[in-house]
Amino acid sequence: MKSMTVHHIEEISAIVKTGRILTNESDRFSYSFDASFGTYLPDVVIQTKNVEELAELVKFANREKVPVYPRGQATCLSGGPLPVKGGMVFDLSIMDDVLEINEEDLIAIVSPGVLTSDIHKAAEQKGLMYPPDPSSSHVSTIGGNLAENSGGPRGLKYGVTKDYVIGLEIITPQGEIIQTGGRTVKNVTGYDLTKLIVGSEGTLGIITKAILRLIPKPPASETVMAIFDSLVDAGRAISKILSSGILPSKMELMDQASIVAVENYEPSGLPKDADAMILIELDGHPAAVRDEAEQVSQVCKEVGVREVRVPQTKAEKEDVWKARKLVSPAIVRIKPTKISEDATVPRSKIPEMCRRLQEIKKKYNLHLVVFGHAGDGNLHPNIIADKSDKEEMLRVEKAVAEIFEAAIALGGTLSGEHGIGTMKAPFMEMELGAAGLNMMKSIKQALDPNNIMNPGKIFPEPGQKLVLSK
Amino acid sequence: MKSMTVHHIEEISAIVKTGRILTNESDRFSYSFDASFGTYLPDVVIQTKNVEELAELVKFANREKVPVYPRGQATCLSGGPLPVKGGMVFDLSIMDDVLEINEEDLIAIVSPGVLTSDIHKAAEQKGLMYPPDPSSSHVSTIGGNLAENSGGPRGLKYGVTKDYVIGLEIITPQGEIIQTGGRTVKNVTGYDLTKLIVGSEGTLGIITKAILRLIPKPPASETVMAIFDSLVDAGRAISKILSSGILPSKMELMDQASIVAVENYEPSGLPKDADAMILIELDGHPAAVRDEAEQVSQVCKEVGVREVRVPQTKAEKEDVWKARKLVSPAIVRIKPTKISEDATVPRSKIPEMCRRLQEIKKKYNLHLVVFGHAGDGNLHPNIIADKSDKEEMLRVEKAVAEIFEAAIALGGTLSGEHGIGTMKAPFMEMELGAAGLNMMKSIKQALDPNNIMNPGKIFPEPGQKLVLSK
Repeated sequence: MKSMTVHHIEEISAIVKTGRILTNESDRFSYSFDASFGTYLPDVVIQTKNVEELAELVKFANREKVPVYPRGQATCLSGGPLPVKGGMVFDLSIMDDVLEINEEDLIAIVSPGVLTSDIHKAAEQKGLMYPPDPSSSHVSTIGGNLAENSGGPRGLKYGVTKDYVIGLEIITPQGEIIQTGGRTVKNVTGYDLTKLIVGSEGTLGIITKAILRLIPKPPASETVMAIFDSLVDAGRAISKILSSGILPSKMELMDQASIVAVENYEPSGLPKDADAMILIELDGHPAAVRDEAEQVSQVCKEVGVREVRVPQTKAEKEDVWKARKLVSPAIVRIKPTKISEDATVPRSKIPEMCRRLQEIKKKYNLHLVVFGHAGDGNLHPNIIADKSDKEEMLRVEKAVAEIFEAAIALGGTLSGEHGIGTMKAPFMEMELGAAGLNMMKSIKQALDPNNIMNPGKIFPEPGQKLVLSK
Repeated sequence: MKSMTVHHIEEISAIVKTGRILTNESDRFSYSFDASFGTYLPDVVIQTKNVEELAELVKFANREKVPVYPRGQATCLSGGPLPVKGGMVFDLSIMDDVLEINEEDLIAIVSPGVLTSDIHKAAEQKGLMYPPDPSSSHVSTIGGNLAENSGGPRGLKYGVTKDYVIGLEIITPQGEIIQTGGRTVKNVTGYDLTKLIVGSEGTLGIITKAILRLIPKPPASETVMAIFDSLVDAGRAISKILSSGILPSKMELMDQASIVAVENYEPSGLPKDADAMILIELDGHPAAVRDEAEQVSQVCKEVGVREVRVPQTKAEKEDVWKARKLVSPAIVRIKPTKISEDATVPRSKIPEMCRRLQEIKKKYNLHLVVFGHAGDGNLHPNIIADKSDKEEMLRVEKAVAEIFEAAIALGGTLSGEHGIGTMKAPFMEMELGAAGLNMMKSIKQALDPNNIMNPGKIFPEPGQKLVLSK
């Protein structure tokens, strides 16, 4: 990969007529990191809303073999937007003009810089819902959600970002602007480029517009909070609820460490002596959700719950969900560095995964907190550490590797919703095998032969290891 | 592409130790057609349940550049299983051993020869549901459904086959056996090979096992039958219901020609003078569906329905849905040859598409019947003709091309659920443009450089035209 020259910057300046080109080091520094690890300074940052200009820049990049790094709000936990090979960053967060809700076709048309929560609001104003709800939705862009195929609590019932994308406008690595899919929910015309691009972490093209499928907003919801003296009982309750004919919209787990952290951070009467808590949301018809809340409470009682609460007012419901939302801010009070994983296991393996996580915690003497989307097996083991403590970070590296090994041994996957990026690339072959990884590499090589689109992501470099301790 | 030699057959015989090799012309003839057009005799048909043997055969095929055609029950309407270049047919309909329902993980594990309706039954016995319900499900294999990404009436609420596939075992064009995805509903580890393979019509690999996501079976359902004096009013009712906050599980349209055909075929009191009928199914909690049936009836009344019926008994409900199921058998009584299309438009364009279909019908003086999955824009314009009438078939060819043009002009797609195969390949560039089609070709070329996997499908040959009149 070449580094950029003065001549390159001149060429870029000739292409970008409607936007800004940032070359000062102080400006570029703002684009050197995301919510994961490491800082990498890009050579230049481009801010333009003009798709044709971006396409011309990609043509230039492809000719000159200059890396292109598309970027939204950089809330990524796996290193997706990091410009690890220098080159150009495209700041797509400014491309936030289009947010059109079409009630008749039940779709939203959005540009990549729109915040996901703004899509939620716009859809709800028309009685509709865009289901994917990553916890970062108030600060993350839909473009980033699309690149990483983000999930969220509602994934249990409604699926993830990919399940709601029916069409894209993309710039190919050759700098051509193409449309994939369209405005119809059914489309089997050739290969599904839409679902290949979504979740490909910016390595196959740049998303400049998306058509999202919406659904009618469920008219009512109920919340159930269940407190357990044993994490294993909580796991059994989760399994039993899911096989009872009810599909909750959310089913979130908080282990004792998360409960304690939240209660210490902002006291609200959470039971610090409980081993686990499950928070369940049911949505749908008012009569249905009342009935289902009753059934869920009954199932919890059958497996020996300590206490079940069904909050009655809107404020009470919000309090319960606030506790879950506070886990992330609460745990970083303990130590400054949070290593947030999203290793995912088949639902039935949640109790066993919890057991193995406790072993890893003990073995490496780390502050490990477990919470997340238990209903779909997508746990979030978070390690809380201090990155200035090199000895501790070495233990973290080993613990993270063992978390991945445990998930894969249980038939799970490295990443349920955060993506591979730089953080999990070294572990890809462990999950996919050489043949599976090679199949992905063949696709990358075919579509981006000069490896200009977000290079350094997903695919491990020879001998690459996870390094958090540098 | 080479034709096969005696030496090839000897090599195949050496590989296949556990199955049958069919070389007699009479045996091979049974594998020369599907439910679309044309007959193409394969050189040899292989029946084995042994995945390693199949993988060895693919290695042999890749070395010798012999075409491989995977095949289920061949109910395909677009030519997917046709061995258009000769070579080997793999009869995967015999691979029907595995049908395992895992209630805890909410998944089914199936081998490709299992009938889709058997998956429905097995899931329902455990209180679960596999939602995709192509009308052919009692005779089509899940392998074929996966290859074509089949839809069905329930696609409106629940999506299509692809939305329920979370893992695959495939044989790559190089003859390697790999796993994609897994047993978790969330998985963002690298490119989504699972969703790339599903719907790729056997051109990128052979599916030898699949992991399907199941959901709890909804406890109740209600049916609403609405009869309209105007097709345009029926279209308005569809739009209004979908924007009223209700998502029916099915919403099927029958135009006057379909109503008349069914009533003539098996009289049951359908209103032959009505311009259109909509059949709606609501599923979910008993109180919810009762309430929603009432709301749907109300919306229909607001747009000027002639009559709304809400059947009360199970038998009455079944009668209503039987009328819809009889459309296909009823229309082939009129003339022997049915050309069944599945051009799909954005929901809001259904009335306009219906108008254009009537114009095409008049222009070419053909028997055109319109029915299908109106709720998701996936209409089934069916032309009824006689393939021995060459002059008529020439008019059919032109009408089909105009149906595709109309769908694309309205922002729709060539195929919502039947696939491209041989039938729609000539029209691919019209929808995708050269750059989009080239992106798909690059993927095919990268994964199957010798073009051995189902050659002659999806991608048009230079100058290829739709020919039904030969």
